[in-house]
Amino acid sequence: MTVQRVTLITLGVTDLVAARAFYARLGWVEHAESQEGVAFFQMHGAALALFGRDNLALDQGRPGAVLGTGAVTLAQNFATEAEVDAAFAAALAAGAVALKMPEEVFWGGYSGYWADADGHIWEVAMNPFWPLNEDGSLTLP
Amino acid sequence: MTVQRVTLITLGVTDLVAARAFYARLGWVEHAESQEGVAFFQMHGAALALFGRDNLALDQGRPGAVLGTGAVTLAQNFATEAEVDAAFAAALAAGAVALKMPEEVFWGGYSGYWADADGHIWEVAMNPFWPLNEDGSLTLP
Repeated sequence: MTVQRVTLITLGVTDLVAARAFYARLGWVEHAESQEGVAFFQMHGAALALFGRDNLALDQGRPGAVLGTGAVTLAQNFATEAEVDAAFAAALAAGAVALKMPEEVFWGGYSGYWADADGHIWEVAMNPFWPLNEDGSLTLP
Repeated sequence: MTVQRVTLITLGVTDLVAARAFYARLGWVEHAESQEGVAFFQMHGAALALFGRDNLALDQGRPGAVLGTGAVTLAQNFATEAEVDAAFAAALAAGAVALKMPEEVFWGGYSGYWADADGHIWEVAMNPFWPLNEDGSLTLP
């Protein structure tokens, strides 16, 4: 079994009710595994979770620790610039904070960034050198 | 194309050479898409990247921003407690910082946490209610 895997990404959030509502506005649908204190979403071969930030610090074995954001980015790749623009607009409409409007970037693609209310950073991008699989997953070329 | 996806997780690191060496010690093998300034690793339907933290702030449209860590955890699920223990020991041997030794947890599984030199948080876990696919990917039950 390869070590090169992430099976669950957990985002620590300060207001779980608000975070669930935000990701629901973005179109994410919770899986039946969700519980009152944690939201789960199925992705390609992995899941995403929303979990209270204080509880996440406790789970990490450092109760009371102030957990930071910003140095991890979660990117969603799209096939076209128009899809990137649409995803970025949808995020802002849902209440996201714009960090960088989508623009052409030096590596030959098109990319923008937004943050959720907790400072979790999402990139929306089109990389012409990385065609996506039909289901939206990514296999590096 | 579902919105419920992350195609690329990027970890902003202060010393890219050291970070590459650390993940190599953990067994991660870089993909040919890697370049001098960025390391890429193929996962299940998504990729992981290591990228300079200052450059990541710049890419996010906020040059000079101090990017934090801690509120995002990346979990690797395993089939058995022994595999969790082995993965945790391998991380410490590679130079990771132990946050929480693997232990039985309230939700019925077995979990530990470690941090890399930049404070990126990894969980190693066994969840008896979430059997893994044969390739190590996760489909929520």
